[in-house]
Amino acid sequence: MIRPLSHLLVLGGARSGKSRYAQIRAEVLTGQLIYLATAQAFDQEMRERIALHRSDRGTRWSTVEEPLELAETITKCSTPETVVLVDCLTLWTSNLMLAERDTVAATEGLLRAVSGARGPVILVANEVGLGIVPDNALARQFRDAAGRVNQEMAAGIDEVVMMFAGLPLALKPKRMTGD
Amino acid sequence: MIRPLSHLLVLGGARSGKSRYAQIRAEVLTGQLIYLATAQAFDQEMRERIALHRSDRGTRWSTVEEPLELAETITKCSTPETVVLVDCLTLWTSNLMLAERDTVAATEGLLRAVSGARGPVILVANEVGLGIVPDNALARQFRDAAGRVNQEMAAGIDEVVMMFAGLPLALKPKRMTGD
Amino acid sequence: MIRPLSHLLVLGGARSGKSRYAQIRAEVLTGQLIYLATAQAFDQEMRERIALHRSDRGTRWSTVEEPLELAETITKCSTPETVVLVDCLTLWTSNLMLAERDTVAATEGLLRAVSGARGPVILVANEVGLGIVPDNALARQFRDAAGRVNQEMAAGIDEVVMMFAGLPLALKPKRMTGD
Repeated sequence: MIRPLSHLLVLGGARSGKSRYAQIRAEVLTGQLIYLATAQAFDQEMRERIALHRSDRGTRWSTVEEPLELAETITKCSTPETVVLVDCLTLWTSNLMLAERDTVAATEGLLRAVSGARGPVILVANEVGLGIVPDNALARQFRDAAGRVNQEMAAGIDEVVMMFAGLPLALKPKRMTGD
Repeated sequence: MIRPLSHLLVLGGARSGKSRYAQIRAEVLTGQLIYLATAQAFDQEMRERIALHRSDRGTRWSTVEEPLELAETITKCSTPETVVLVDCLTLWTSNLMLAERDTVAATEGLLRAVSGARGPVILVANEVGLGIVPDNALARQFRDAAGRVNQEMAAGIDEVVMMFAGLPLALKPKRMTGD
Repeated sequence: MIRPLSHLLVLGGARSGKSRYAQIRAEVLTGQLIYLATAQAFDQEMRERIALHRSDRGTRWSTVEEPLELAETITKCSTPETVVLVDCLTLWTSNLMLAERDTVAATEGLLRAVSGARGPVILVANEVGLGIVPDNALARQFRDAAGRVNQEMAAGIDEVVMMFAGLPLALKPKRMTGD
C-alpha cells in the first residue's frame, strides 16, 4: 500500500520549543535528515550560535543554508529517502523583505514545492501577532507578512501544531486514513 | 421546535484570519448579513482600505459604521432575519478610551445587547496580551482594557474560538442540544 | 488508597484570567490556602494594589511574599494540609535577573521543590513570546529566560493549562487514574 506523504507545520512563539519539537518529529522518521536553515551568519557571534546548534543536532543531520530560495532547495534536496526540516519561515519572510522580494508569490512557490516534495517536509514558523500593535511601520508590515505566510502554509499542509511552553497543541490533525 | 439563539466570539492575533473566519461563519447562516464596523476613516488611506474590504465582502452584506454605540446599534439592527457581525471589539475599546468612556460599563451594556439580540451575533476581537509588557503606559492600559473586554464577552457568549494561522481552535464549544 | 499529588501550571498572557483561574482551582481543594506572591512593593501605588488583591482573595487565604527563594519557601510552607499558589513565575524570573542569579539553576531547584512538596502546588506564569521581537536587548533576554522557565516547568508538572480570555485550554491533561 502506498501512503501519501504527510508534511508538518510547527508554529509557536519565541522559546516555545518549536525547533526542538520539529527535530524530534523528524528524528522518529526513517531517512537522511536535512536541516534547511534560513539564518545567515552576519557576524562572529551568529557564526558561533549556528555552529553550536549544528553540533547540538548531532551526526544524523546534514545542514543546508539557504536564506531565500526555499522552494528550489526543497525541490533539489527532497527524495524518498530524506526528511527535510525548514527552520524557519519567519526569518525567511524577513530575508525576503530585506531583499525586496514578493512574499506572496514566494509563499505560493514554497507551498507548491512542499506539495511536490518526494519525502516528508517539516516547517517551523513563528507566531508574532499576539502582542500590542508595534509603533514601527516596518515591524507592522513584517507582522502582516509573517501572518500571511503562516495562514497560507497552514491552509495547504496536512498537519499543523502550535507550541506553548514546549507542549504541542494540534490545530489541524492528520486525518486517520485507516492504515 | 424553537432553537435558542447562539452567538459566537472569534479571538485571534493580527493576521490570524479571524475576520475571514467570522465572515464564513456568518455566510453559512440564512438571513440578511450586516457588517457592523468599528473602524473610523480618519484619512484617505483608511477610506480606501475600508472601501476595499467592503467590496471584498460582496453584495450579500450591508455595512453599518459605528465606532462607539455598539449596544444600541445591535439592538436596532438585529432581527430574526439578520446576522450581525461586529468587527472588532478591540478597535471599539480603543475608540472608547479615546472618547474617555467607561469600558467596563460599555462592555456590560454590549453583553446585554448581544443576549437580547433577536438574531445571531458574531463578534471579532484581538488578543494583544501575549507579548512583552509595553514600555508605554497608555499601551499597557489599553492591553488591560482589551483583555478585560475579551474575558467579559467570552464568559457571556456560548461559543468562543481562538484563531491561529487561519485555523480555529474551540475554547468554548457550543453545547450539543440534541437538535 | 494513596493518591499521588497533582500539581498545576497555569500559563497565559496579560489579562487572560490566569490568576483568577488558579485561585478557583485552589479553592476547590481542601486545606489551608497559601498565596505565595513574587511581587515586591517598591512604592505606595504597588503597596495599595497588593493590599487590594489580598483583600479580594478573602479570609481563607494567607499571603507569603517572597521575590526570590521560591524553592525554599515551598519546601517550608507545603504540608499535607496546605495548597500553595505561586503567582507568578515570570515576575520571579525578572527578580532573579535583576539580582543577577542563574535562572536555569533556580528553575531546576524550583521543580525539585514542587516535586517534593507535601501538598498540591499551583503555579502561574506569563506567556510573553508571541509578539514582535523586542528592540531592547534586555527585553529579548528576559523573553528567552521566561520562555525557558515555562518550558522547564511544563515538562515536569502533571497538568498544564493555557488561558485565553478567561477560558482554560488543556495543554497537558492530568491522566485519568481510575480513582
